[in-house]
This record gives sequence, C-alpha cells and structure tokens, in this order.
Amino acid sequence: MERSALLHRPDSEYAYLYEKDRFHIRLRTKHKDVAAVRLIAGDPYLIDQDKWYQQSEAMTLLASTEDYDYWFIEVSAKFRRIQYAFHVTGADDEEVFYGDRGLFDVSQAVLAKAENYFRMPFFHEIDRFKSPQWVKETVWYQIFPERFANGDTSNDPAGTLPWGSKLPGREDFFGGDLQGVIDHLDYLVDLGINGIYFCPIFTAYSNHKYDTIDYFDIDPAFGDKALFKKLVSEAHKRGIRIMLDAVFNHAGYYAPQWQDVVEHEEQSRYKDWFHIHSFPVAYGQNGNFEGATTLSYDTFAFTPRMPKLNTANPEVQEYLLDIATYWIKEFDIDAWRLDVANEVDHHFWKQFYQATIALKEDFYILGEVWHSSQSWLNGDEFHAVMNYAYTETILNFFVKEEITAKKMVSGLNEQLMLYRQQTNEVMFNCLDSHDTARLLTVSGEDKDVAKMALAFTFLQHGSPCLYYGTEVGMLGENDPDCRRCMIWEEEQQDLDMLSFTKALIALRKAYQPILSYGGLAFTHVNNDDNYLIFRRESPDGVIDAYFNRGTAGHAVVLGYNEKIIMSQNVTQTGKGLTIGEKGFLVVAKTNE
Amino acid sequence: MERSALLHRPDSEYAYLYEKDRFHIRLRTKHKDVAAVRLIAGDPYLIDQDKWYQQSEAMTLLASTEDYDYWFIEVSAKFRRIQYAFHVTGADDEEVFYGDRGLFDVSQAVLAKAENYFRMPFFHEIDRFKSPQWVKETVWYQIFPERFANGDTSNDPAGTLPWGSKLPGREDFFGGDLQGVIDHLDYLVDLGINGIYFCPIFTAYSNHKYDTIDYFDIDPAFGDKALFKKLVSEAHKRGIRIMLDAVFNHAGYYAPQWQDVVEHEEQSRYKDWFHIHSFPVAYGQNGNFEGATTLSYDTFAFTPRMPKLNTANPEVQEYLLDIATYWIKEFDIDAWRLDVANEVDHHFWKQFYQATIALKEDFYILGEVWHSSQSWLNGDEFHAVMNYAYTETILNFFVKEEITAKKMVSGLNEQLMLYRQQTNEVMFNCLDSHDTARLLTVSGEDKDVAKMALAFTFLQHGSPCLYYGTEVGMLGENDPDCRRCMIWEEEQQDLDMLSFTKALIALRKAYQPILSYGGLAFTHVNNDDNYLIFRRESPDGVIDAYFNRGTAGHAVVLGYNEKIIMSQNVTQTGKGLTIGEKGFLVVAKTNE
Repeated sequence: MERSALLHRPDSEYAYLYEKDRFHIRLRTKHKDVAAVRLIAGDPYLIDQDKWYQQSEAMTLLASTEDYDYWFIEVSAKFRRIQYAFHVTGADDEEVFYGDRGLFDVSQAVLAKAENYFRMPFFHEIDRFKSPQWVKETVWYQIFPERFANGDTSNDPAGTLPWGSKLPGREDFFGGDLQGVIDHLDYLVDLGINGIYFCPIFTAYSNHKYDTIDYFDIDPAFGDKALFKKLVSEAHKRGIRIMLDAVFNHAGYYAPQWQDVVEHEEQSRYKDWFHIHSFPVAYGQNGNFEGATTLSYDTFAFTPRMPKLNTANPEVQEYLLDIATYWIKEFDIDAWRLDVANEVDHHFWKQFYQATIALKEDFYILGEVWHSSQSWLNGDEFHAVMNYAYTETILNFFVKEEITAKKMVSGLNEQLMLYRQQTNEVMFNCLDSHDTARLLTVSGEDKDVAKMALAFTFLQHGSPCLYYGTEVGMLGENDPDCRRCMIWEEEQQDLDMLSFTKALIALRKAYQPILSYGGLAFTHVNNDDNYLIFRRESPDGVIDAYFNRGTAGHAVVLGYNEKIIMSQNVTQTGKGLTIGEKGFLVVAKTNE
Repeated sequence: MERSALLHRPDSEYAYLYEKDRFHIRLRTKHKDVAAVRLIAGDPYLIDQDKWYQQSEAMTLLASTEDYDYWFIEVSAKFRRIQYAFHVTGADDEEVFYGDRGLFDVSQAVLAKAENYFRMPFFHEIDRFKSPQWVKETVWYQIFPERFANGDTSNDPAGTLPWGSKLPGREDFFGGDLQGVIDHLDYLVDLGINGIYFCPIFTAYSNHKYDTIDYFDIDPAFGDKALFKKLVSEAHKRGIRIMLDAVFNHAGYYAPQWQDVVEHEEQSRYKDWFHIHSFPVAYGQNGNFEGATTLSYDTFAFTPRMPKLNTANPEVQEYLLDIATYWIKEFDIDAWRLDVANEVDHHFWKQFYQATIALKEDFYILGEVWHSSQSWLNGDEFHAVMNYAYTETILNFFVKEEITAKKMVSGLNEQLMLYRQQTNEVMFNCLDSHDTARLLTVSGEDKDVAKMALAFTFLQHGSPCLYYGTEVGMLGENDPDCRRCMIWEEEQQDLDMLSFTKALIALRKAYQPILSYGGLAFTHVNNDDNYLIFRRESPDGVIDAYFNRGTAGHAVVLGYNEKIIMSQNVTQTGKGLTIGEKGFLVVAKTNE
C-alpha cells in the first residue's frame, strides 16, 4: 500500500457535520491501491469502558480521480462527540491504522490508545455549514441589464443605439433596463427558471456598471428604487429569487470617496479608505497610468480607475455592510454575488456573512473565485463560488475536446472532493457568463455539442445557471461580444434551442430531489470512444445518463421499468436503442 | 515519483503570511522520493505580459518524517498578490507540474495557463496569524494554587492539613493561596521564569477549582481581588506575565445558574444556558447519576456535576465574554488558558479572540487541545495549544523509551508541519502538569533522564513550561499525587536539580533569538544507538546539540570557535570529548 498517499484532515471537508446529527467522514487513498477501509469510532470518554475499538464499519468508495480514491461514511454519535480512525487494507493486503498520531501497524495496543484517534469533540449546530434549501431547487438565469430588454425608452442614455442594431462595442448603450425585465418575467416563468442573477444595477458610468459610483441607488438608465422594488415583488410572486452583484473589492474612479482623495490627496478624509502607498494619486501623476506597474495605490489588476477598497478599515466595513443590508432590508433581495471576492479579506467576509444572515436566515452568498476555494467555504463566509473550475472541466471535454473522458471525470471528482456535500449542493454552475465567450460560440455553433454540455451540467451536483439568450441560440465571442442585445423577435430566435432549454429546466425540476441530493457514480468511462455513463441515485429514485462524445454508436437496451426522459441523436434499432455521435440518453427508473 | 503523495493546501499552514510581506509556502512529498522542487510564481495579472513562468526558484528541504519530506520557501510579492505552482523533479527524474488544477506533465502550454496556479489573492495584514512577541521570550511556570505556598493562614479552609503532612488525597486542603505566590515572586525571579500559568483561582468548592461557582470572584481560601491585583502588579514589576485558567466548557454543579435549573427545572430562566434533552435534571433522577450514559443533559465527559454550557446562546456568550474581559480590564492579566477548549464551538472562540485582543493587542490565548488543532489555529481563535502531542513524543523517546530516535524526530516534525511557523513559536510545551504524572516520577526517578528531556524541550521551537516543584525534584504519580505541596525546606529540595533548572532557563534566555526563531535541522539520527544531533540556526548564531540516549559513548571534537553552554555526562578524552550514557552536549558557535 502507498502509505504516503493516505490523507485525512479533521474539521474540514474531510470531516464535517452534514446535517444536525449526520457526520460525514472522507479518506483519500492512492487510486486502485486500497482494497477496503473501515472506520473505528466511538465516544472519547467510553474507550476504556466500551472498548468500541474492537468493532469497525465499512466505508464505501465515493469517487475516484486519476490519482486518488475517496472513501466515505456517514455516522452519528449518541453523545455528540466522536473519536475515529481508519483501518486501511491495501490491495496488497497490508493493513494500517491511520489516526491523529499518524500511521501504525494494527495492534491491540495501538487500537486501545485514545490519543491515536482523530476527534470531532462536539457536534455544534452553530458551527455546521448550512446551505440555503431554495438554492438546491433553483435554476438561475443571468441577466446583463443593459442588454436584456428596453422596457422604458424615456430613461435611455444619450446616444443609445437601436436595439440589436450592431455588435456591442465597449462603450455602446442599447437601453436595456429594469422595466424590460419586468415586462419579460412571464417569459422567464414560461422558460422555467426560478432565480435571476443580475450583473450590477447601481449607479455607474459604464454599460457594465462594475465601476460603481453610488451603491445606494439604481442607475437612472435602468430605473429607480420604486421600480426595482416592484421588480423584486413581481419576481417573488412568480417564485423567482433575486441575486444582485456586489463590487466590494474596489470602488469606481468616480465614486465620491475616491474623487475626494483625487481632489484633496493627503488631506482627504477618505485616504484610509484605500491602500495608498504614496501621493499624489491623481491619474497621470506619480506613476498612475492605465496598466502601469508603477501605480502608487492598490487597484483591481493594474487599473488605476478601480482603486482597491481598504476593507480592514472599520469605516469602510460599516459603509459596505450598510449597503449589503440596505438592499435586503428595503428590497428583500435573496442573494449577493460578490465580485472579485477572493481579493477581499476573510475578516470582512465573516462580518458580511453575519450581517446578511442575521436579516434573512436562508440568504445566499456567492463568491467570485476561480480557483480552489476551501478557505472561503467553511460555513462562515460564502455558501458557494462561481464554479468555473468545475464547468471549465466540462467544457474542456464536451466542447473544446482538449481532454479525455477519464480526465474530465477525474477533474470533476477532484473539485467535488474539495468541498462539503452541502456546499456542492449549492455551487453555482455556469457554462458561460458576461466574462466569457458564449457556449454556442465556443461550441463552434454546433448546437448538439452545446446541448450535450448543458444537459450534462444540469444532471450534476450544484445549481445550474443559464446566461440570458442561451435559450434562443445567441452567439458571442469574449467580452464585449458576449453582451449582445437579447433577441426578442421570434423569427430570429432558435426555437428548437428554446424548447430544448425548457425541457431541460423542466427535467431538472421534475427530478430535483435526485439531482440535488442523490449520489453520483460514473459507471462507465471510456477514453477510446469518449463514451460515458453515470448514475444519480437517492431514496427518491434513479437516473441513468449516457453521453456519447465519440463517433461510434452505442447500443443500449432499456429495462421494462426505465423511462426515457431526455435524448439526443438516439435511434431505435431492433429491440434496443443506439446513441449516435453527439448523442445522449437520460433514463429514469420507475417503481412500476 | 509517487505523484499521489504530493500535497499542498492554499491558505493554510501550507501557504500563509508569516510577517507582513513574508509569505511561506510548503509542499509535502513522499520521503526520499523527490530530488528537487522549484517554485514558479508571479503576479496573476502579469502572467501574459511578464511570462514569469519561464523562471523558477529552488525550494529547500525543511523537515522529514518517516513517510514525508516537507519543502519550503519564503517569498514576497511586490503587488501583494501571488500565483504559484510547483515544478517537482523526482528521484527518478520524472518531472511534474503541480498546481490548482492538479498534476500535469511540464509543458509551455501548462505553464502559461493562469488557472493552473494556486493563488494567494492578496496579502491582507488583517488576516495574518499574529502571535504575541513576548510569549516567544517566555519560560512558563505552572502553579496549582492550593499547593504552591500558604502565605496567609487566616484564610485556610476548615480542616486544612499541615503543609506537606501527607500525600494529597482528592478532597484534601493544605492552605496554598495567592499571598504564598506573592511571597515567593523573588524566588521565581531568581529561578528565571517570566510567565506564571495559574490553575483556576475563582470561587469553587474543590481544591482544584475546575468546578467554578463564581467566575467574577477569587476563591476566599486563595485571597481576594485586591490581593490578586497586587499579585499581578508585583509580578509585572518583575517582568513576569500572568495567565489564568478559564473553564468555559462547563459550569460547576453549584454555579447559581445550574442551581436555578436544578431548583426550577423547566421553569428556570437558565434552562437554555445548558444542553438539556429532558427534565428533570436533578441529580439522582431521570438517569442523572455519576458516570452514567443515561444523563438527560450534556456534560463534561459523563460527569453530571459539570453541566456543559450552551455557548451558542447569546446570553451565555455575553456572560462568558464579560468574564474574559473583566479580568483583563480590571486586573491586567496577560493570557487565558482555556480548559477543554476543543469541546466549545468555534463561533464562541472567534468572539472570545476579538473581545480579548481588542483590549490588549498582545494578549495570549492558549487552548487545551490534545490532538491535531489546525482548525483552532488559523489566527482568529487561539494562538497556541497545550502541545501534548509534541511533548508526548519527547517523553516516549527520552523517558519511556517506547520509540526510536527516528520515530521521535518523525513525530516532532509531523507535529511542526501541522502549524504555521508563528504558531510553533508560541506553542506551550510542558512535559508534565496537574493532569499528568510528574516528569521525575515518569523518569523512574532517574534525574539524568528527566534533565535530558527538559534540556531537549528547552532547545525546541515553542515556549517551554515548568510544572511547580520540578526544579526541586518533586515526585508524583497521576492526579491527585502530582499535586503535592511545594517543598520549601532547602534541606529537602534537590539543589542540584535547582541549579540545573536555573542554568537551563538562563540558557534559553541567553540564546532566545536562535531558539525562538532559528531553524531546526536534525543532522544525525541513529536508531541503533539512540544518538542524535541537531542544529538551531538563525542570523543570530548557531547552536549544536548532541543527545545520547543509548549506552555507548560518542566522541565529539569541537572547533576552535565552539563553546560548551551546557552538558551532562560528558568527559574529556584526549583531544576530544565523549558523551556518555544519558549524556548531552550543547555547543554555541561564536564569531571569534
């Protein structure tokens, strides 16, 4: 056995309370190196009396990657305390005891020693990572407000271009606004989505509004507070939740606090709101040019127009927390998406969590983090991150064809094993966004490929998100091209894509308990023909999914109690079915 | 190369800010499996422009265990952001790129891809783990107040026994008090210690006072608040810091809140201060007996007389935080030691940290945790734990002779690698305490063995602690025997042990910068003869230490610039020295 590959970390995603009395334990071993793992566990104060170490319980293989196997068990503890260790049997029959003091040969002396065990000292409900139930049942729809719909031409900024009259440039305005969203809420209901993620809607000069000027007001080109209140209320009436975008890493150049610093330099009362290394800070002086590495203050990237906020300053904390709570208290929003969340300090996000959750127990906090996010996802900062590392893996296989089927499965499992189960249940899975090229464009305009990727994503753990217009076949290269005006003329919409998207959303909702909570096991993954099969299973039922990214057809014979709930490029052949190139088949087992 | 053994975890003890601009990075590999590790790093926003991935920097081997090697590098980042990955070369010449998306073969395409790198998104000073400077310079002395000295017989409880008249039983009182400590402060100054850790001094019935009745008062048998104030002031005048013991996991049975519940049961206004599953809670009813597993409320272990406090209840939080801050504000104490700290929730300890540090920036928070403590040691709960897992390893080799020299070194390094360097610098290292048998007793009354263990401990990372009386050769089996009355009659004291202890403390202080901050490298570890050599080294100098736990003698020839600063069982033999059985030699390199 490869002892050096054994890994467990107490009080982390390897050992955590899933629900009140359900404690999850994972162990990592080298792939295909271990034959069995058993958990030895009991109450720390009963080890001598009960000799519980004389028994053990089998763990199951939860997931595998190219390099690792992950073993799993769910346990409880009558007295809400647990000591535990692993009895690992290698494929070579070597046996090892693995606990808090490291690795030992298995012996009664080792087993009987209390200090050799890992510990979860007490099941504290207050420390448990809680994820909001409703997110597990949500299909998101991302709206870039300037480009979704123009519902009120009276608030169009000067120079607004006719809707869809050209491909968008960096500085273009097309008049999209909140009234446009309200006008199309019933369209969204018909589509089936039940959560909207809005890119920023607060006052700012740009069309994307990531350069906030006034966090306490709606941009006048989008509407006003009364209109936004109406939007939230109308959305809630239709069972749609609202998530806003908070840009707290940096202010916009024209934010009054930064303008005060630009004007008064060292005399500004706001100088400690930012990270200033030397004065002057005014643009064009003291090394402060666009993209320069000589900037005299910290910024987002090297953009002098986005001065980084000093979130360690209590005044700034108070200011930003006021904003965070204002939009909940006054407008009843359901979630915040946090821009550049990884560059803001943990201390601030812990305050943010407490302030928002205190107002709304099931509030959802989503961080923009593109890399491993364990340190934000311990239950006291974010509930989830924009799961680019996960969806990128899906794209790399289905769309870009850069990796093999096995490499994709390995990558997905590796990502899942970074987080607790309740985190994975609310991860935000989008295949494209305002920050990337559009799915259909990346797919080389091959709809079958785009649909496969969407179907696969909707069948995974986590909360899927559609970028506006995906449902009508919209195209777009990287920003700003991915921000084209929504196509509303039916004759220009891809209605086939629309009906596919509706069916996919309906499937996700019809089988929500299985898809949200069920296990996921890849039962067949083949690199030679890029064909894979996986099963989602929970007490609520079973779904089998077959995806063929290769060229050869694959035969499937369904059982009498199996029902096709979605398919693409599948044909009847004699008694069975054949899944053709770029085909997939999703089957639900019924209880008949 | 064994790829499955590679381990790094961003934003943890594997990647952290040590000081403001000094970022530490560690990587774990299989022992003796890797020839070299190089760090590839740069600013995330300059990867395309600077192509910094075309360069790399060598990491050094920091520590080894039986199973692993740990590699280390300290880096900085001009723009306070860093992306990094590892270029690992195996002993078999295999080369691997290891980053945020896993393992890859090294190629320009892999190197150039931003998402492949781990990230420290911004160096936030507020998130940095800060450990109090003074603790690094402290030698602790633990006092069990009832047994240290009786300075005022007028406050002796009824039935107090003459000092040292018998071995202590569970219920005995001998009259020790705070005046006794004040009377002997100059003794402690002469000994050389500069921190006192007091077992509980608050009102309680027992002699050990872990069953608190009134957290806001001094036990009358120990003195009163005015006297305690004087004690702190006199200690501070002498450069001695004061640490008190906080028992916040559970109340004592006679605490007024619990008494109220016992009396009023479900009607008590304090019923939510505890974890009660069913009423009645009164002793003797409803399964509530000593040691029973049928208790109707949560307790410490299965002790109905120690009802567990509900630290998730805001009233309890406020009550305990009032206590925590009261003794700082009113009496200027310097540290809290937290009893059964691992069974109290993280949320509470985060509040505790904030409340105490707000009053005294360099306050020291020490948790009683006997197992892996990473989740309490991220900079926002404790500074350190009572390092039993570490000192137990020292005892297992030097005193109990249960493990080999290599196993000890492996165990020590494994423990060190669980924590950040600034944590290790303030870990609380005691070889015995009021909860264990005394060192000299465990050593079979072999003074040479006890001295070796002490000398070895004082030369390690962390802040060492002497249990009262160790310096005069006191004996004692497990509790209550380890709580004997301090020996004050000079003719009964072991004066050799006293002068050894003084010399050891003096050495620790004379070479404090090297011992607190210096690297530690075991340069020779031999299982056959249990002989080991290690080096402590910093810009302040070099110390070499030789420890011989075997029976054969070992020859050492010193260089012209080496000075013996401590030794035991070392004899001159011709031109060199011989370190005999149970001998050790500590040598400092001078700059002459």
